[in-house]
Amino acid sequence: MNFKPRDIVDQILPHRTPAQNQAKAYAPANIALCKYWGKRNETLKLPLTGSLSVSLAELGTHMQCRIAETDRLEINGQMQAADSKAFRRLFSFLELFREPGTHFHIQSTNTIPMAAGLASSASAFASAVNCLNLLYGWELSDRSRSILSRIGSGSASRSICAGFVEWYCGEQPNGMDSYAEALDETWPAFRIGILCLSDAEKAVSSGVGMQRTMDTAVLYQSWPTQVARDLPLLRRSIQDKDFECLGKTAEQNAMAMHATMIAAWPPILYWKPESIRTLHRVQQLRAEGVAVYATMDAGPNVKLVFLEPSQSDVQSAFPEMQVVQPFGSTCQD
Amino acid sequence: MNFKPRDIVDQILPHRTPAQNQAKAYAPANIALCKYWGKRNETLKLPLTGSLSVSLAELGTHMQCRIAETDRLEINGQMQAADSKAFRRLFSFLELFREPGTHFHIQSTNTIPMAAGLASSASAFASAVNCLNLLYGWELSDRSRSILSRIGSGSASRSICAGFVEWYCGEQPNGMDSYAEALDETWPAFRIGILCLSDAEKAVSSGVGMQRTMDTAVLYQSWPTQVARDLPLLRRSIQDKDFECLGKTAEQNAMAMHATMIAAWPPILYWKPESIRTLHRVQQLRAEGVAVYATMDAGPNVKLVFLEPSQSDVQSAFPEMQVVQPFGSTCQD
Repeated sequence: MNFKPRDIVDQILPHRTPAQNQAKAYAPANIALCKYWGKRNETLKLPLTGSLSVSLAELGTHMQCRIAETDRLEINGQMQAADSKAFRRLFSFLELFREPGTHFHIQSTNTIPMAAGLASSASAFASAVNCLNLLYGWELSDRSRSILSRIGSGSASRSICAGFVEWYCGEQPNGMDSYAEALDETWPAFRIGILCLSDAEKAVSSGVGMQRTMDTAVLYQSWPTQVARDLPLLRRSIQDKDFECLGKTAEQNAMAMHATMIAAWPPILYWKPESIRTLHRVQQLRAEGVAVYATMDAGPNVKLVFLEPSQSDVQSAFPEMQVVQPFGSTCQD
Repeated sequence: MNFKPRDIVDQILPHRTPAQNQAKAYAPANIALCKYWGKRNETLKLPLTGSLSVSLAELGTHMQCRIAETDRLEINGQMQAADSKAFRRLFSFLELFREPGTHFHIQSTNTIPMAAGLASSASAFASAVNCLNLLYGWELSDRSRSILSRIGSGSASRSICAGFVEWYCGEQPNGMDSYAEALDETWPAFRIGILCLSDAEKAVSSGVGMQRTMDTAVLYQSWPTQVARDLPLLRRSIQDKDFECLGKTAEQNAMAMHATMIAAWPPILYWKPESIRTLHRVQQLRAEGVAVYATMDAGPNVKLVFLEPSQSDVQSAFPEMQVVQPFGSTCQD
């Protein structure tokens, strides 16, 4: 059977009668340590493999939704045209949840740069689902909200939870077993460093890049094997607090994902000269004894993974780095 | 049976009595359009897959060998210390061919920059074999000289011939079926553009890079599939003079080879910021309608592949480019 997004939404939602006139919600962005790269089902955004991420605490999307006479979308205070990409993508998603004739004024505020491989679509779709859940009073479980977010943007499934999050590949054709769940682990010293080398819009969207890679990169055939190796390594390294294993696995996984893109036709070169310079600098820091690892998403930016004791060394090498504490401040914990 | 290089040399050489006191020979460097990346036998330099290259005409190594009282090696007019890497690598190879007590003064002149992924070891070992063949008067076939060169440096097997050259993978454990042969095709308009972005010695030698990739890159598992796809495409595109197919296949093959390195641990990043800038520029030129494709070997440098009619467009984009005519000047042909 060929399931449509609407079928899944119908199955999950208890009703379509708003409980309030407006609601506000938040969802964090997330950085995958084992990447989601390739779908087995395009319309339901079902992944070919599982993935594992860490949510970015206060970096994400705040969304406010108000029932109104017309659809309106404001992002970071800027009204979006009805024919803009962002408007069309968000409202065709919201359409799945509301009765015909219902309209929303949406105000969305990102605390993370958009469209530069910094996963802002993940937090946008997850915060939209969180927002509708309150607006309609559905009281949906994390699992249901994860599935619904996934239909908007695959990696949004992981933005429902905080901390380390695993998105299960699942195998059912309706995708009801493809959702994300938080790992029952905290790691207060864990740090993510964000280097925003470019906030220019990407020439190739991640969706297009993913499809082109699957269609044309011979090396993509080995990607599921890579993930099958990396997921258990990451789970175990988080459990054992084995930072070296976590860092190596995350960096190699990200490099392997980019490798599949580079091997596509035409080659998908998200890397910019500054990306390469940063990757070389990270290798050099490690040679100097600093335990820091790099990860990259579908874009030119580099994110660093390290522990609190290395923070000053990493920050001196990258003064412009923005540091995220996925488990809150170490002092408070 | 575990064959040693000496066994193979013994099998090929008719005798070890010099016919002259000195000899001079030349071999061209070569650029692979389908790369050699990975050995199935380290000591005999037997490859895991076949490969296909184009020889660089006048860019290569001129070698003069004179029988002398002691071993001496001069490269580009510079005397090399007996404990230098170049000296030890060349003389441990020459040792296989001469009687104990025989010594050589070697003068080698490269017309191509060394150790920057510009395949100077290929032309060095091939010219050494060509030189010994004359010095000893062996009158060896191309095939025999290709096998002997291969033992010095895998890709040297291809530097025995001019034009388009295929190195057969072979399957015999003694490697007697792993040699290179020229394709019976000329393409006078074919051009190689060399961009020497860096002539610094590489941090990771190609031999080490190859081994690390085989040992640690999950994606390397798909490399033989990539080659199995690319070799026939290249053969056919050369035969049909289908430049677009040749260019696409060569660029994708090179990118896939680098992808396997990037996916290794630690990642092998031969790319420098300038390499990325060049690859982006090549994509941009193609978008502007110029049929130019990139290839890269185990180093930061980029080589361009194009046809004579595009030369002025490519040269304006890359004024520092050195152009090679693998089939001689078009005017003379």
